Amino acid sequence: MAGNGPLHGITVLDLSRILAGPYCTFLMAELGARIIKVEAPPKGDDAREYGPFRGGKSTYFSSINRGKQSIALDLKNANDKRIFETLLAKADVLVENFRPGTMEKLGYGWTELHRRYPRLIYAAASGFGHSGPWSARPAYDMVVQGLGGMMSITGNPGQPPVRVGMSIGDIGAGLYAAVAINAAIVARERTGQGVKVDVAMFDCQLALLENAIMRYTVSGEIPGPLGARHPTITPFEAFATADGYVIIAAGNDVTFGRLAAALGKPAMAQNPDYASNEKRLANQPKLKAEIESVLKDKPTVRWLTIFEQAGIPAGPINSIKQALEHPQVEARNMLVTVDDPKSGALKLAGNPMKISGMDDPPTRDPAPDLDADRAAILKELGL
Amino acid sequence: MAGNGPLHGITVLDLSRILAGPYCTFLMAELGARIIKVEAPPKGDDAREYGPFRGGKSTYFSSINRGKQSIALDLKNANDKRIFETLLAKADVLVENFRPGTMEKLGYGWTELHRRYPRLIYAAASGFGHSGPWSARPAYDMVVQGLGGMMSITGNPGQPPVRVGMSIGDIGAGLYAAVAINAAIVARERTGQGVKVDVAMFDCQLALLENAIMRYTVSGEIPGPLGARHPTITPFEAFATADGYVIIAAGNDVTFGRLAAALGKPAMAQNPDYASNEKRLANQPKLKAEIESVLKDKPTVRWLTIFEQAGIPAGPINSIKQALEHPQVEARNMLVTVDDPKSGALKLAGNPMKISGMDDPPTRDPAPDLDADRAAILKELGL
Repeated sequence: MAGNGPLHGITVLDLSRILAGPYCTFLMAELGARIIKVEAPPKGDDAREYGPFRGGKSTYFSSINRGKQSIALDLKNANDKRIFETLLAKADVLVENFRPGTMEKLGYGWTELHRRYPRLIYAAASGFGHSGPWSARPAYDMVVQGLGGMMSITGNPGQPPVRVGMSIGDIGAGLYAAVAINAAIVARERTGQGVKVDVAMFDCQLALLENAIMRYTVSGEIPGPLGARHPTITPFEAFATADGYVIIAAGNDVTFGRLAAALGKPAMAQNPDYASNEKRLANQPKLKAEIESVLKDKPTVRWLTIFEQAGIPAGPINSIKQALEHPQVEARNMLVTVDDPKSGALKLAGNPMKISGMDDPPTRDPAPDLDADRAAILKELGL
Repeated sequence: MAGNGPLHGITVLDLSRILAGPYCTFLMAELGARIIKVEAPPKGDDAREYGPFRGGKSTYFSSINRGKQSIALDLKNANDKRIFETLLAKADVLVENFRPGTMEKLGYGWTELHRRYPRLIYAAASGFGHSGPWSARPAYDMVVQGLGGMMSITGNPGQPPVRVGMSIGDIGAGLYAAVAINAAIVARERTGQGVKVDVAMFDCQLALLENAIMRYTVSGEIPGPLGARHPTITPFEAFATADGYVIIAAGNDVTFGRLAAALGKPAMAQNPDYASNEKRLANQPKLKAEIESVLKDKPTVRWLTIFEQAGIPAGPINSIKQALEHPQVEARNMLVTVDDPKSGALKLAGNPMKISGMDDPPTRDPAPDLDADRAAILKELGL
């Protein structure tokens, strides 16, 4: 956590587990907030048991809980409830991702929380939200990706289904929750009052689709998967080369002309079938075959050089390894080191929110062991 | 924009075009901020020319610019610069997604802006950020999805590449920018000073990968695409049924036992090859074939009923149409209506950030025509 980050001075009590909630508070930690994980004994956050492990500690857990503190509290035990309530009285934000109704059963539903801690902002990330007929149902990332339509527009037509390769169901909800919580902190400066933020993974999938929803509601046509192709611009897709693929993004007639020249096929730009984006879109299969007939003669790296010199936007399909070796990664500090006492040095994703005057050191603090900060927190609370 | 949203009273000058920047300010508009699009004459935001059109107006543009205002200003013209600077003096936030260096050329680089408008928060969303050797390069969503590794983990092994079906390159950057800007507004309450927020589409791709980065840096194994399968939990994937697919998320031994029973194959749960998640993961192809041999007898909808009754997390792969017909969509107001004077009634994605006390009406204001609010804004400024 950055001591001079914009959220410096903000304390977040984090009851959340696994991914959506912890990712939200991870973002807040990167911006300088203090995150106190309140974990259920005896095991704490379920993600502590997710591999891969190193030195007996979950690196999955470390990756999204670095720089947070931990206290184990049984919210059904009177003494632990007293500690929790003392923390609530000092906290700015409470984040949880239980199934709706769980907080009420523990005696910490929004009505009760707001009555007792009027300045507290309460954020709930759940599968289907705190209202509606599906509210009480559990959700998993892939189930939500399927229900929300995301998988229906991702993949190759006629081939087996594809999920987005990262957990867009959870990570998406974490991002929208962070946007809303930070706005709620802004509002509290004006109103003096906390609010309840209710973010559903399912709702977030719809919000992320956006453009696809508009295309369907306007045209009545149901969008399908398009492989690695842009829905309305051509050529704007991945093409096969001698040794892999290259993505070419020729968004207008000028760039298309340059592409025709760079491929050594200037006549292509004169072909009436390719005279406009509309024509190119209508003749996409033919155009793709024509482009690939040339691309297959050279490897991707050669084509990238040619396209760069010709001013044609293009790029490779990098593996994770290749992506991390991109020169911007070091220049932008997008791979940071966590020196974990159990796991040793871990290399993890950096913070993409670069802010003037905010520290962005090459290292981050490790994720806490379960209950690691109990003594310090109790002392601080005078308990 | 919600008059009682948490960002009520915040004014954003929005120089951004197309998607990443406009999506960021769209989120802020939904939270109550006033967004003034400052567009370059004579055409304004390029997205105004993106289809599909209805009534001569881009519905693509409408979908992410609803509820904003528009003024056309030529930032190379002295009179328009005076108007822009009067707006800057009153604004809280400036958002742009030009290529790095453009603002400096216009005389509005961060150093100059911060000197003249110390309270102004300046957010730049660019392809590769405002530092590093690739800073000046342009970027497109699909190129960034390829460069950043996202496409390498999305798709089916050995099949042609797949992009994430929505513009995760742009939308991702818009989300992180909104998190950072809102945090910067929080900080300004304390410091009285604005900051510069520098978000790169490429950095955001790495931040979204997170778990895949950790898996690679810890194990040295380069993650590949896994179709619709979870990397470490089995069975947790899409399976073929008689008429399509069903996603089954059996995350532990208890759920796996239920699944075996629900499929009428209780012996499966006793098979030593499937005795633990580790075993099931190692024998995933065999287990998948065994599960699909039963699933192929019934359509997806029948299996969903069976799995629901058995307490097994499962779901369909909904089309966009089916996703929008889900009962939570109406219950959560996730499809709102924009009554556009040119396009008529448009149905667009709602706001997934539900906040207590904040209006969430079933309608939103339309997107502005280019320069539609000039007279009102000039009058307000006394110009």
